[in-house]
Amino acid sequence: MSLQPVPAFEPPYLMAVFSNVRADDDSGYPQVLARMNEIVAQNPGFLGHESARTPGGLGITVAYFRDHESLRVWREDLEHQAAMEKGRADWYESYTLHVATVERSHGFARNG
Amino acid sequence: MSLQPVPAFEPPYLMAVFSNVRADDDSGYPQVLARMNEIVAQNPGFLGHESARTPGGLGITVAYFRDHESLRVWREDLEHQAAMEKGRADWYESYTLHVATVERSHGFARNG
Repeated sequence: MSLQPVPAFEPPYLMAVFSNVRADDDSGYPQVLARMNEIVAQNPGFLGHESARTPGGLGITVAYFRDHESLRVWREDLEHQAAMEKGRADWYESYTLHVATVERSHGFARNG
Repeated sequence: MSLQPVPAFEPPYLMAVFSNVRADDDSGYPQVLARMNEIVAQNPGFLGHESARTPGGLGITVAYFRDHESLRVWREDLEHQAAMEKGRADWYESYTLHVATVERSHGFARNG
């Protein structure tokens, strides 16, 4: 199974782009990240997510949801809210979150 | 000037997420990328862009535009179209493009 971008879904769907610069403090981060991935995977409207990080540079995570309701459930999850608070306190130097409705999308694969 | 995510703009605005896996062929890529950055910067509705790439892994580029019209001008630019064709022929193993309208956004900066 080779590395693949998240595929194009049938529009409309929701997309949250989280672009961030990490702080030096990494304490507890991998554990919380694993737990967040576990929680969001239980959301029936969660379509997938993908991340990239330039070493020493910017990180971008994109999460895809079927509709506003499923994204709302994720945003209001209490463990997720505690993680976001910890992120602002310790893990992130700066970030921007953009929430959007996808109107069109397409994919390309050389051997697809 | 430290590294910063692209800031949150006043919604609504457009966002194009290009997630991709590179092929081995890099020929001409840096030159074309520099030229694309030059062209898009002349677009009055271009708000900014940001990229991250995990070494050996996924790359994610996000470009932000004020409205559909400015994104259309960029999509239909002939040099850009030639670059996209070259990308499918040589530079990318696979990619997905998601085009969306941003409905809300916010930023955080530790010392901001």
